[in-house]
Amino acid sequence: MLLHNATLATMEPGAPYGLVRDGAVVIESETILWAGAAAELPEAHRQHERHDLGGRLVTPGLIDCHTHIVHGGDRAREFEMRLEGASYEEVARAGGGIVSTVRATREATEEGLLASALPRVDALIAEGVTAIEVKSGYGLDIETELAMLRTARRIAAARPIRVRTSFLGAHAVPPEYTGRPDAYIDEVCLPALDATHAEGLADAVDGFCEGIAFTPDQIARVFDRARALGLPVKLHAEQLSNLGGARLAAQYGALSADHLEYADAGDAQAMAGAGTVAVILPGAFYTLRETQLPPIDAFRAAGVPMALATDCNPGSSPLSSLLLTMNMGATLFRLTPEESLRGTTTHAARALGLTDAGAIRAGLRADLAIWDVATPAELAYRIGFNPLWKRIFGGRL
Amino acid sequence: MLLHNATLATMEPGAPYGLVRDGAVVIESETILWAGAAAELPEAHRQHERHDLGGRLVTPGLIDCHTHIVHGGDRAREFEMRLEGASYEEVARAGGGIVSTVRATREATEEGLLASALPRVDALIAEGVTAIEVKSGYGLDIETELAMLRTARRIAAARPIRVRTSFLGAHAVPPEYTGRPDAYIDEVCLPALDATHAEGLADAVDGFCEGIAFTPDQIARVFDRARALGLPVKLHAEQLSNLGGARLAAQYGALSADHLEYADAGDAQAMAGAGTVAVILPGAFYTLRETQLPPIDAFRAAGVPMALATDCNPGSSPLSSLLLTMNMGATLFRLTPEESLRGTTTHAARALGLTDAGAIRAGLRADLAIWDVATPAELAYRIGFNPLWKRIFGGRL
Ligand SMILES: [Zn+2]
Ligand SMILES: [Zn+2]
Repeated sequence: MLLHNATLATMEPGAPYGLVRDGAVVIESETILWAGAAAELPEAHRQHERHDLGGRLVTPGLIDCHTHIVHGGDRAREFEMRLEGASYEEVARAGGGIVSTVRATREATEEGLLASALPRVDALIAEGVTAIEVKSGYGLDIETELAMLRTARRIAAARPIRVRTSFLGAHAVPPEYTGRPDAYIDEVCLPALDATHAEGLADAVDGFCEGIAFTPDQIARVFDRARALGLPVKLHAEQLSNLGGARLAAQYGALSADHLEYADAGDAQAMAGAGTVAVILPGAFYTLRETQLPPIDAFRAAGVPMALATDCNPGSSPLSSLLLTMNMGATLFRLTPEESLRGTTTHAARALGLTDAGAIRAGLRADLAIWDVATPAELAYRIGFNPLWKRIFGGRL
Repeated sequence: MLLHNATLATMEPGAPYGLVRDGAVVIESETILWAGAAAELPEAHRQHERHDLGGRLVTPGLIDCHTHIVHGGDRAREFEMRLEGASYEEVARAGGGIVSTVRATREATEEGLLASALPRVDALIAEGVTAIEVKSGYGLDIETELAMLRTARRIAAARPIRVRTSFLGAHAVPPEYTGRPDAYIDEVCLPALDATHAEGLADAVDGFCEGIAFTPDQIARVFDRARALGLPVKLHAEQLSNLGGARLAAQYGALSADHLEYADAGDAQAMAGAGTVAVILPGAFYTLRETQLPPIDAFRAAGVPMALATDCNPGSSPLSSLLLTMNMGATLFRLTPEESLRGTTTHAARALGLTDAGAIRAGLRADLAIWDVATPAELAYRIGFNPLWKRIFGGRL
């Protein structure tokens, strides 16, 4: 397949967006065989079946590198109660908060978890997303953590999308372990990690390092097990306070540290040194009406790659639009449109350890998005508008 | 047609959302013949062709009561320049700001204006929107103001949606009248208003009362002409400062005053007395990163009906999702989900002077939205997700 008459945002070094005007892409089976200016197309590739893109923009398929898209129930009633003025206690008495999602997830079947996740996945696919990360973390018991990650794997079978899973047993302390977080780590989290690894269900290991969740020491014990199993790590860090999570992540060579509103320049240096991606999650910032901005300038100065993700979850970020996430990254955090697109392509791929995605380059997977826009800046500029024309997944339109 | 096995958010007085469980709606040609609990369905209506809605939620069709959806060009490059750190002067030198939209709109043909507006209209229709308001105001010369409103009328011919037009000649002073706003009103705005009225193109008359636009006295001259022509008025008021626009609007019995971040309790009283709707525009608040919140509590206390709209425009609110607007109303302005839905149904209808829309009640137009959700609160709760199942416009699925 030869795509031509297109503008390519290759995201390769050189011009902004790696932009190539009057570009062409040659695809063979699942792979990009050649990409560049049409004038330089080698003779050998000219016989491929031609598709005229009418001057449209081609970007790498978008990647949502941080989601909790598999979960039971929703929290619409809690959302409504808070807006009607209910106190935190009233919401808790009515069964609100993360506990309600844990309950709903434990009560759900795998079929039910899959059925409720798919419309959200479809919303992402409709925006040109070709890979997502999916976390466990609402089971908080061995069986349900396994069920969540099995469901994540089933998404990749049910839809044309790649799924990378993260085991997030260290997400919260479940009610039955209130006040005994270490016992939870020993008796549930580590055994659940072993079990998911034994089933080949975990591509990475995540945690939530925060006053309301786990301490750096507790997270370190989970990371040690991950290391022993040969699994890469990542961490929810410095969202509501600075506990040293970002440095801990860097120390373990984490793929990413995520949220990071309270991270500082030292954290940025540590992450840069370790090659840890900063995953910025404006949906949660927006929903929680936070005011502390992540240290974008420090990340830029230190050369920390920044990714953007939906954080799709039923509580703090019931967001399932990666395009809107790009607009929020620009509007709320002052990322440039190019940083926003890099954050959902190249840098998101890196945050997931995907070495074959995130750019338009010979040898990478042919996961592409084709847009009805004149310039790549339009992708972050518009709010609640989807200009996707077509999506190519593994070489297939 | 008989819709049954549905939950109805009728928006009628009584229960929150006017909710009717196990409800039914009888439609004959364009009109709702009967709506209520299925158990009370009169014998005479039981022969209509039955449609089982599978327990889904039915709301009135959504109404976007404030848009600038017809305009030339986009401002993505300006958005990008600002985020890359360009100064206001640099943006202006590069031809940015409203002047660039005026230029692009003047250069466009009516065909071009229509073609660029339709994808945005389609995005609204896909979210269950059945009526929109469309303003002029980027022509600022007689011919282009006429062309914008003719384009607005053509939208209603091209798509299954109702369009209410507003003449907004008093939107900005065009470059050729810099420093001579009164001359612009006399020589362009009033003659353009007469011309649009003569062609039957204006359903209402709007203005922008602000330091960067027109004074209350200048707006009053436009409103006097509107009154002479028998046209209702509305006003962009108190967005960036309090100049007395909301009181002026109330004095003229305006359909609505819009934006209103800087309105106060006295303005709310005046608006309540005049029956003027407060149209809240969170997209512009979000995009401009404003911090001054509109006086929601004062509007509640005074009994001012509040509507919500996209303000879809290329500069301060390139937003074309009314569902996202509802979430922004809740998240940023703390409207309840019920207020958000009322703001895009009953109160939006009132802001447009539509007496046959905005609720599910016998005698109203059969403009309905059918949603794959369990409760109406989900519509405002989710971010960037569209659960529309089907839309009924004028009695047609
Ligand atoms: Zn998360
Ligand atoms: Zn406006």
